[in-house]
Amino acid sequence: MEIRPAVVPPLADNVPQASPAEVSRLLRFRKGLDFGGVDTRATPGFEGDKLAGRAAHVLDNEVLSDLQERLFANARTGKFVKALLLVLQGRDSSGKGGVVKHVVGALSPHGVHVAAFGVPTEEEASHHFLWRIYRELPRYGHIGVFDRSHYEDILAARMHRLVPPKVWKGRYDTVNEFEESLADSGIDVVKVMLTISKEEQAERLRDRLERADKHWKFAPSDIADRENWDAYTEAFQDVLDRTHKDHAPWYVVPADRKWYARWAITRILVHHLERMDLAWPTGSFDPEAELARLEASR
Amino acid sequence: MEIRPAVVPPLADNVPQASPAEVSRLLRFRKGLDFGGVDTRATPGFEGDKLAGRAAHVLDNEVLSDLQERLFANARTGKFVKALLLVLQGRDSSGKGGVVKHVVGALSPHGVHVAAFGVPTEEEASHHFLWRIYRELPRYGHIGVFDRSHYEDILAARMHRLVPPKVWKGRYDTVNEFEESLADSGIDVVKVMLTISKEEQAERLRDRLERADKHWKFAPSDIADRENWDAYTEAFQDVLDRTHKDHAPWYVVPADRKWYARWAITRILVHHLERMDLAWPTGSFDPEAELARLEASR
Repeated sequence: MEIRPAVVPPLADNVPQASPAEVSRLLRFRKGLDFGGVDTRATPGFEGDKLAGRAAHVLDNEVLSDLQERLFANARTGKFVKALLLVLQGRDSSGKGGVVKHVVGALSPHGVHVAAFGVPTEEEASHHFLWRIYRELPRYGHIGVFDRSHYEDILAARMHRLVPPKVWKGRYDTVNEFEESLADSGIDVVKVMLTISKEEQAERLRDRLERADKHWKFAPSDIADRENWDAYTEAFQDVLDRTHKDHAPWYVVPADRKWYARWAITRILVHHLERMDLAWPTGSFDPEAELARLEASR
Repeated sequence: MEIRPAVVPPLADNVPQASPAEVSRLLRFRKGLDFGGVDTRATPGFEGDKLAGRAAHVLDNEVLSDLQERLFANARTGKFVKALLLVLQGRDSSGKGGVVKHVVGALSPHGVHVAAFGVPTEEEASHHFLWRIYRELPRYGHIGVFDRSHYEDILAARMHRLVPPKVWKGRYDTVNEFEESLADSGIDVVKVMLTISKEEQAERLRDRLERADKHWKFAPSDIADRENWDAYTEAFQDVLDRTHKDHAPWYVVPADRKWYARWAITRILVHHLERMDLAWPTGSFDPEAELARLEASR
């Protein structure tokens, strides 16, 4: 058995882990992938345990933070039109909130915009389904995060029979065109489908029911949805099959191990930001002249 | 010389630090306080060094996070109308951005709304000065953070002669009435005025000028404002004298030591949240019955 120091977490450099590009490749949806057959306990691209995964994630947070600050700084120049939109979907208790807290939470709040989409309010329901979505798009230089999204207007609409089949079926095309227009306008759309096993969900819902400080996270409808497990699997499969595009790819992330999902999503975000080639913007002033002015003002 | 372990930060329990209520009392503005005379290197309520301060801050983050989650959870019940609004003001480089990153950044992004107010855009300038402010108010259950705020419509308006004196002078009353209406509607307004010395500002601006990755944080107007140091001191004093109210108090926070300002502001936020008496909300379901349903669904 390997001997580890008690306090210092093992350095991630010692752990075989796939590069951001490689992790993205491994988890990217591809035609023919059977969503229901994904091993939800797997850790593609990471050969290490929970402790090593957490340590690797902490180190990656620094990389992600640096990239975010570059994205933000460039937008300040006024001539930069890029943003990133992370869309999180998955069953109840699959860990979407945890990703917001632990992945997005590692970033400076200045450049982040989080929107959680619940059951539409009366005002939202009286508009086109993309109305509330457009209002929450990230501005340039920001990372936007959707905790649930316009995909609920297909998924929940279908499962809860909120609209006739003809309506939600027509939304695949609408969503594809919408996301293409985002990409055309400089918003890099990264879609993550978290997937957990039925057993793992039972454990998580049980935890919410057994702890009074977690009751607020539970709704009886969570169990009703769970009883429709297979129908949901089919609905997720259809969403993946019909809306995975090069300009807005889906990543299917095994999420029984929370630490893995967080590590993997961080790497996917790093991959997408690295492709933006984010150099620090140059100022529109002469630093030497400004330093002289500064000295004169002492 | 004291011997310290190399890795483990000293526990804050060993360091004499004032309670959240006491820190709030110490830093709270009071009539007669001379803003220009505040010792910007002081650490009221904390008897320890930077390392101890950072360790104490890390521990406090846990407390603040717990309170924020309770605030957020209560709002989910739909019968709860409380929020907190943190207003950050201070000279250029006084550390407002750092507070957003390190104090607010410790919270789950779900329940936080950060708004940075810059020079008004054309659209903003064509509206009442509170128009853009109202749009960024936190919803109930959230902590809102204003990095600069409606006070710029008094401060910048005055210093840069953007409007006639009669106009910005009239805004003290407008702002007081506005903040009173927020308090009446359940929004706890906490206003923080960070204060640094002229020497410390020179060091920070120099750092921004000497590092290419910090140029984007610098604007030549920062030095012009610095050259009006005393006039700004007077403008800050007037804001404090005229807008410090029980329903929307100002806290004057010495900020030459960044670690101190962050620790102190965290304690002030904890103090305000603790006064809200945030119990965990009870669910509108029977946990035992739901657990039975859950078991049946396995």
